[in-house]
Parts: sequence; structure tokens; C-alpha cells
Amino acid sequence: MATEEELNTQIAELGEQIKKAKQEKKPKEEWDPFLKEMLALKAKFKEVTGRDHGPQTQVPKPKDSGQQEASEKNKEKRAAKAASKAKKEAEKAAKRAERERREREKAEKLAGIGQGNFGDAKMVKSHEITDKKWIEVGNLKPALAGQKVLIRGYIQVSRGVGKGVFVLIRSTLYTVQGVAFQNKTVSQGMVKYVSALPVESVVDVEGTVTVPENPVESATQKMVEIQITSFHCVSKAKQALPFLMEDACRPDEKKEADVGAYDENEEVKREDGLVRVGDKNRLDNRWLDLRTPANQSIMRIESMVGCLFRECLLSKGFIEVHPPKLIAGSSEGGSDVFTLDYFGQPACLAMSPQLHKQMAAACSGFERVFTTGPVFRAENSNTRRHLCEFTGFDMEMAIHEHYDEVMDVFSDLFIHIFDGINERCKAELERVREQHPFEDLKYLRPTLKITYAEGCTLLREAGIDQDDYEDLSTENEKKLGDIVKEKYDTDFFFMDKYPLSVRPFYTMPCPDNPKLSNSYDFFIRGQEILSGAQRIHEPDFIEERAKAWDIDLSTIEEYVNSFRNGALPHGGGGIGLERVVMLFLGLPNIRKASWFPRDPKRLAP
Amino acid sequence: MATEEELNTQIAELGEQIKKAKQEKKPKEEWDPFLKEMLALKAKFKEVTGRDHGPQTQVPKPKDSGQQEASEKNKEKRAAKAASKAKKEAEKAAKRAERERREREKAEKLAGIGQGNFGDAKMVKSHEITDKKWIEVGNLKPALAGQKVLIRGYIQVSRGVGKGVFVLIRSTLYTVQGVAFQNKTVSQGMVKYVSALPVESVVDVEGTVTVPENPVESATQKMVEIQITSFHCVSKAKQALPFLMEDACRPDEKKEADVGAYDENEEVKREDGLVRVGDKNRLDNRWLDLRTPANQSIMRIESMVGCLFRECLLSKGFIEVHPPKLIAGSSEGGSDVFTLDYFGQPACLAMSPQLHKQMAAACSGFERVFTTGPVFRAENSNTRRHLCEFTGFDMEMAIHEHYDEVMDVFSDLFIHIFDGINERCKAELERVREQHPFEDLKYLRPTLKITYAEGCTLLREAGIDQDDYEDLSTENEKKLGDIVKEKYDTDFFFMDKYPLSVRPFYTMPCPDNPKLSNSYDFFIRGQEILSGAQRIHEPDFIEERAKAWDIDLSTIEEYVNSFRNGALPHGGGGIGLERVVMLFLGLPNIRKASWFPRDPKRLAP
Repeated sequence: MATEEELNTQIAELGEQIKKAKQEKKPKEEWDPFLKEMLALKAKFKEVTGRDHGPQTQVPKPKDSGQQEASEKNKEKRAAKAASKAKKEAEKAAKRAERERREREKAEKLAGIGQGNFGDAKMVKSHEITDKKWIEVGNLKPALAGQKVLIRGYIQVSRGVGKGVFVLIRSTLYTVQGVAFQNKTVSQGMVKYVSALPVESVVDVEGTVTVPENPVESATQKMVEIQITSFHCVSKAKQALPFLMEDACRPDEKKEADVGAYDENEEVKREDGLVRVGDKNRLDNRWLDLRTPANQSIMRIESMVGCLFRECLLSKGFIEVHPPKLIAGSSEGGSDVFTLDYFGQPACLAMSPQLHKQMAAACSGFERVFTTGPVFRAENSNTRRHLCEFTGFDMEMAIHEHYDEVMDVFSDLFIHIFDGINERCKAELERVREQHPFEDLKYLRPTLKITYAEGCTLLREAGIDQDDYEDLSTENEKKLGDIVKEKYDTDFFFMDKYPLSVRPFYTMPCPDNPKLSNSYDFFIRGQEILSGAQRIHEPDFIEERAKAWDIDLSTIEEYVNSFRNGALPHGGGGIGLERVVMLFLGLPNIRKASWFPRDPKRLAP
Repeated sequence: MATEEELNTQIAELGEQIKKAKQEKKPKEEWDPFLKEMLALKAKFKEVTGRDHGPQTQVPKPKDSGQQEASEKNKEKRAAKAASKAKKEAEKAAKRAERERREREKAEKLAGIGQGNFGDAKMVKSHEITDKKWIEVGNLKPALAGQKVLIRGYIQVSRGVGKGVFVLIRSTLYTVQGVAFQNKTVSQGMVKYVSALPVESVVDVEGTVTVPENPVESATQKMVEIQITSFHCVSKAKQALPFLMEDACRPDEKKEADVGAYDENEEVKREDGLVRVGDKNRLDNRWLDLRTPANQSIMRIESMVGCLFRECLLSKGFIEVHPPKLIAGSSEGGSDVFTLDYFGQPACLAMSPQLHKQMAAACSGFERVFTTGPVFRAENSNTRRHLCEFTGFDMEMAIHEHYDEVMDVFSDLFIHIFDGINERCKAELERVREQHPFEDLKYLRPTLKITYAEGCTLLREAGIDQDDYEDLSTENEKKLGDIVKEKYDTDFFFMDKYPLSVRPFYTMPCPDNPKLSNSYDFFIRGQEILSGAQRIHEPDFIEERAKAWDIDLSTIEEYVNSFRNGALPHGGGGIGLERVVMLFLGLPNIRKASWFPRDPKRLAP
């Protein structure tokens, strides 16, 4: 038996639905069932409580002031009268509802159509644990044919056809088609109810698995269908959707070019004339945008990269470190930092875990450490490949003799990540490809390694101006990526021995050529995804190099100090997670690989 | 043949050593070998370059101004004279050095003592990869007896005895004893060199593994010793240590009480009169403090907790989400937030990933998500169990019917974590226990669950005042922990159905009693380590509850909006990683479980 509270909630919810339907000028046949049900519930309410449903007659609290007594009495009288009237009306309505309910039950009993096989479910409030078993949409396969199953998911599409309705139910990145046609168990009311539910509502669907004659092309579970026997709404989509999922899922017409400034407001027209959901609309409603199968898949691949990164490094004896993001001082060696007040002290947000991962690996003797976490850049860059908060995957390790020891670990690591995505995320890759077509990433085993000088030579041989001791422009990096792809058939390579002048002061210089350094960058499809180096572990030498850079030694005192008690030679590097995912999948924009992107113009949701 | 640059570096390094030795008024016998070596190197320098070693005579650049010419010429003359004098002196010195070198070689050849088996190693600059193989100290076992091995580690202790020296070499949490006594390969100079090296310097030690007659009690590798054949310093500890490792490793005399305010400056005296390293000293030099075997172990256990947490949740279909830490607005529902300027907009640092993990799990349909990352609290709490930045381990999941589904996952999760630490971190647990003795954590399978009301009853039965609808004080939580331990023999339990009034507005009320809520806390040794609940997924109901809390709806508009497009019923919870580690190990202070702690008074290193 339902409790008073439950009945109240259900009645209120039905009332809301009726009110809304009326406001939206829906035909009466659509909201009449709700009205009847509400009246029936009100009757049940009286049965349970012995009271009529409705606002209770409140006995006004006595007030202190004697002057107000007379008017209070009048009010009381009026209230009593109104209550009495309301009571009578409610009694009438309840009787009428009860009569109607009995008639309906009788009619449906005669027709063999059971009650309770559709409607709004009671709000999930942890009332009880039943013996119901839900099955995941992704697990629906022809082997289950003939079995009764229960699934929960979002209504992606619903399409009424004559006396029936097709619904596409989505859970995570999987969809399945459900079918409800009027028959012995499916009433006309039920078909109407299913058809009228707003898309993206969450529903519980029960039915029998069948194998359709022709594959259901619109679903991921093409070889099965569900013959619906019950349909309940668990959470109704209560406001107009800012965009249609259909539009949000449409395959890209062409690649956006990764050049110049990025403006999320910019309207890009589709050549085929169909609606294109703009980035602003998507990102303003990111929780909805993330529901598309492509986005579900991108984020699952991103999660897998984290899993693969840690799996590989843990197997190589690394441990996880949690470096602080709150750093003393108002500048961390650059102006692009977010600053804040820390109990009266100036502080800033770490632009990288550099200092602390070095401390952990080399100065505290942990030897091999990694960390994954947010990295903050107050850089006013509005491009397709910059974020103000991204996820840094960093490692740092002691070396015995040579930074090649680090690069070997990275080569293994990236191959493990790329192999892992390809092997463990097949369904996800398919979903991404459907919306954002891309070429498979090509990579060699072990990873191709060229020197910076060799890279420059390749560029010059192609007629591109590039000095061995000057920095590479983003443009030349991309051209080099093309040349390397052409020559070595790989989208992924390492380049080492960068000019000393383009790397941070703590980079170990090259022992053979003082103008070079023991540093490296890694590239995917011609874009940098990792930067690293052997770092100087000798405090006096760090200071010497800092002086050569005209760095005020007092600003790096703490950093240098941590090397004064004996330190292990070491090197490492850092990856931007979102950039790795973006480039592996050939996505047009880094925001597509960020859960809730932060750029100079966006701080929400 | 060494290059000019290498010779320069080596000569400069020797010069530094001699200078330092002289400044420290060390006996000549200690620095004389360096001097001789330097002179020999200078001779070699001349051989290689055809020039004398020393500052080169610079030809001044011609200046524009004609007026300065005369004085410039005078300067040139003086410089030429000085250079000529320097050249003659250098030639003399080189000859003398060469003579001495030959004599020394002759003497040592006669004595059968090889060159190059001790001294300062060339700075590791990635010169080349040799065929040297280092072995990890933790892998040194009696099975290797008779084999020659090479290890790298910190000198933890060195103790000269007559004509020999014992050194304890530490790498990560393992130590081994090395022995060098004067013999055919070990010269007097070598023993002196080894003895004189400052402790905590990083060294490469080569030698033969032997099995000692009696176990080496001071080492973790008790059943082996290394008979040293060569000894080179890789990185010298260059400044006086702020505390001795011996003092920093000393076992606790008694537990610090976790009550009242915490002051890292507070001097706590040991009853045995031995030196106790104060917290301020430790934390100011955290990179050194972290070298103690106990701290190495605590951090490795902490890393393992992360590994076990993800391992368990990934196996249950969770994926990792990376929620932003930068949040719009200057307050996130509390005053204890750090605020900052975000390109002209007010922003703050997330106090929890609550909103975004709910969005991901319930509104975007990812169903099961976890996240691990920094959480920021601008709370001015100076206690033994609060940090201003800690590591949050959070999860959020869709539920079908009941929040028990969440608690079941948590029960499995914690048992997986506790079992995992006990099984995979035996060596680490031993090291922690040596310094900070603690009782093994007791826990049941599945986890004990009591209701809040039952907890309150237990307290009242023990004569402690506690109302069913009022919050538990920290003190009563601890008392309850004791009572539960006594009654059920477990240090770990869940308590659910907290009063609605003590939980956040978005907590789902209990369906049976409107004064209770579908929420829970988990406790280890009487201290809360996890707080969670079923959350409201219906937007209108969230608003209703927010109103009951007098919360201005405009401040939660964005939060509520994300539930308006259909949302899955869901629940979750968050753990403070450092607190879990602290309580599992019974540590006296949360700072011992934080890599680089941040509290209201500490923002460095």
C-alpha cells in the first residue's frame, strides 16, 4: 500500500503534467488518462488517510496582539467555509474518479490489457530493492532472443507509426530499438504515452528480445529489437532541448582547419544545408553534448589512456606522486599563471608538476614517479589547441647514464597506449569514426627517433628555411610531420638534441656540443604532444645555467636547495592528455577531448 | 682520449674540491691527491689542445671611440705581460704535475693497486651508454653470493674502523652494507675517500656479494654484504644536513594525540633524551624527510591505494573523468574557497568534484565515473587532520533502485584496498611499523553497516548523550568507533540514514522518514573517511529542497539546469586519500601522508 507521502508526490506530478499539457494546448485525449489517474489516486488517498486530498485547513496560530482577534475570527470563518466547500468538491471528484477507475479497470480487464504497464514511475528514492534485473543495452544480443529483458536508458528518438511506436533507447554508447504496437498487452493509452514522452527522458523498458528480419541500421545493436511490454518514465526531460541529438550526432562534412584564432560563436554553415550545432551551443550544454555516441566514445578512450599510462608505468616500477597545485609566490617563472591569496600570502596555481616530480624522483630518492592531474595556464590563447586547464600526465625517473633510458620508457609507453586503444576500444573507435572520420595512426616499434639537426635537414631538403639552432614554428613542425610520414610511414616520432637556447635553464646541456641540449619533443601528426629532457642534478651547475639565462638566483633558491643534499641524475617529460586524444583521433578541436573545457572565454559549466 | 671540454670540467671540479677542503681546514693529506690529479689533468690538457690550461688571453674588441685607444693599448700591454707570466707558471706546474703523476703511477703499479677505482665520477651528462648493469638494492640476496654487482644509492651511514670503512647504501626503502678494507685493490686513499664523503651523497658502488656470518641488523638486506672494489661519487651532498637521518628514522616513543590545535613549531621532548626531529624542520626539508624508509613506505602505500582504487572501479565498469578545478563565481556554496581572477571574471577552486561528477554520471549518461585529484579548502583549520589541499578520490554512479547499490560497490572497494595493501605492501608495512608502531586494521566482509539511529543508541547505551536527529561530534564519532570495535571487532564500518538536516540540500530524503536522508559516512578507527549519499535527480525536487534550506535559487541555477534534460537516479561519495592512508597506518598526523603538505601556515616546498 502506498504511503500518504508517495500518493501526494504522484498526485502532484500528475497535476503538473496535466497543467503543462493544457498550457501546450495538447489534445484532451493526451492528458485525459493523467486526469483519470490523478482522481483515482485522490480516492486512494482518502482511503489511506481518511482525509480528502488537497491543501489542509490550517488552524492559524494565535497572535499576541488582541486587536487582531476580530479580523482573525472572520478569517477563520471564511477559511472554514472554504474548507467545507473544498471538501465537498473533493469528495465528489473522488467519487467520480473512483467510478471512472472501476469502469476503466473493467473495460481493460475485459480487453485483457493489464494495468500498470506504462506511466511515470515513482521517483527513485531507495524505497526498496526488488528482484528486478536490468541488462545493459550493450549486452543485448541475438542469443537472448525470446527472453524478457529490462533496460534503462534515454529515449534518443521516438517515431509513431499508425497504431504503434518505435523508440530508440540509448545507454552509454549503445542504442537498441524498441517497438510497441497495440495488442493484447499494449493499450492505445500506452502507445500514446510512449509517443508523447519528450526525447532524452530516462525510461525503464521491459520487453521480449526478438531478431528483426533486417538489421536495425539506426541502432548499434542492429541484430535485436525489443517488443515492449512495459514502459515507465524514470526522469522526464522537462525543458526544450537546446539542440536535437540528431543534429549533434551528424557526421562532419569536412575537417576544420587548425589555424588561426578560435571563436566558439563562429557559425559554420554546412554545404548540405542541414543543421550544424555550433560549438557555443554544444559547450553551453556540455552535459547534453556529451551524450552523443561519438563524445561518449572519446571520453571512454580518454579514460582508457589514463588506465594504459598507469598500467605501463606501474609495471616498470613507477609510483604515483600527488604534487601540490598551490605554489608559493605570485609567479612560477612566467606571467601566464593564475594568482591567488593564500591566507595573506601570494600564491599561484602550478603550471606543471616539474619541481615536485623532480624532488620526488631525484631528491627524495623515489627514483621513478608519475602523476596525472590538472595543469593551469593563464595564457590568453584562443586557438583550437590550447586550454587554460588541462590534464597533465607527467613522469620523472632517475637515469644511470643517459636520457635514452627515459626515451626508451616513453617509446614503450606510447606503443602500449596506442596498441591498447586499438585493441580495447574497438566499439568506441567505430562510434568516433562515424561522426569524425580519421585515418588510423601509424607508428613504428620501437618509435622512430631523429635528431633536431636531422629534422632541420629534412625541412631544408624540402626547400623550407630552417636553422639548426633556431626554434621550430608550429607551421614547420607540421611540415616536418608530413615529410617524416612520407619518408618513414609513421605519424609518431621523437626528436632529440634541441638547441640549448630554446629549452628551460634547468635542461642538461649536450656533452658534445654546448649549443645543444639533452632534450626531446614527441610528435603526433606533426603536433607536439610531449616535451622533456634530462635535467641538471648538480646545484652549482643549475645556478651557472640560470645565470647564463639572467635569472635572479633568489627566485630559484628553493628549487636549487633541494639538490644540495645529493640528487640522482634524472630526466622525464609531460604529456597533455587532451592533446594526445585529440591527435590520435584526428579531432578538429581540443575542446572535444576535454570533459568541461576551460579557455580564456569559457569557465562553465 | 678526453675532450677539451671534459678536461676543463674535471679540472674545475677538482679545483672546487681543493678550495672547499682548504676552506674547511681539512688536513693536506685529504686534498693533496686532488691537487696532484688536477695538475696531471692540466698536463693532459696541454697535450690535447696545445695550449696551457687557464683563463685565455682575450683580445679586447676594438671600440668605436678614438679617445680610449691609448688606455686600451696600455691595457693590452699589461695583459700580454700577465699572460706570458701565467703561461710560464702553468708550464712549470704542468711539468711538476706530470713528474708527480708518473711517480705515483710507478708506486701504485709496484703496490698492485689499480687506478680509477674511486673518486668523483664525471657528471652524468648522457655521454654514452656503456655495458654497465646496475642492480637494485632490494634485489640483493644471498643467491648472488660471489657475483660482482654494481649499485647506485645514497650513503645513509659511513663508519671508519681502523684500516677500513663500513657504509650503508640506501636506494628507495632498501639498504645494504658495503665494506672496504685496505687490500690489494683497496688503497689507503680509497678508504679515506669513502670515509670522507658526506652522508646522503649519491654513489656508485661496485663489489662482490658475500654472505656475512651474522645478519647485518642495520640493513634491510641483512643476509648479504658487498665487498667494495670500486666507489665513485655521483652527486655530492654539498650542504650541512638540517637533521641527521638517524634522528629522522628513530621509532616514535608514544602516539601524538589527535586533539586540539596543531603547531608544527611545537617542540616535543623525547623521554629518552634522544634528538627528536620537529615537524617544522622535517617539512621545511620535505625532500630529505621523504628519504626515511618509513616515509618511502607511506608514499608507496599511498600510490598503491590509488592503483587499487582504480583497479577495482575499472573492473566494475567505471571510467575516469577529469572535472575542472576552476569554477565560475567567487563562492561555491561556502566561504572556505580560494578565489581568483580568471581573465576578468571571478572564479574559485573546486572544493569537490561534486557537480561535474554528477553531470558526467547522471546527466551525460556515463553511468559510472570516478576521479582522483586535488581538492581545495581555504579552511583556517590548524589540526592534525586537515589540509588545505588534499587528494580526493571520488566516484558517482547511476542506481536502479536503491543507494545500497552504491554502498555495495564501496564495500567491495574498501575490502579490495585493505586486502591489496596487506598483500602487496608487506615490506612497506614493516618499514612503517618499525618507526610508527600500529595495530593491524580489522575489517569485516562484507563491511559492517549500521544506521545512524543504531549508532546513536549504542552511544546512549554507553551513557553518552546523543540525539538521533543531531550531528555527531568528532569526539562522539571516536567513542562510537571504540564501541563498535568492542562489539563487532572491526575498525571499519558504514553508517547510513543520517538526519536530513545535517546533509547538503541536494541529498535525497529518506522515503520512510522525512527527517532522515539517504546518506552515509564511512569510518576508520572512529574517524570519518568517506561521505556520500543518493542525490536528488529531479530538478523541481532539488529546487524544493534548496528552498527549504533558504538557498537563493539563482546561485544553483546551472546545477539544476543540468538535470532538466532527463537524469539518471544516482549516488556516490568521496574519500580523502591522505586520511585513508593516515588512518589505515594509524599515523599521528595527516601531514605524514601528504607528499608536500599545504595547511594555513605552510605553502612550501
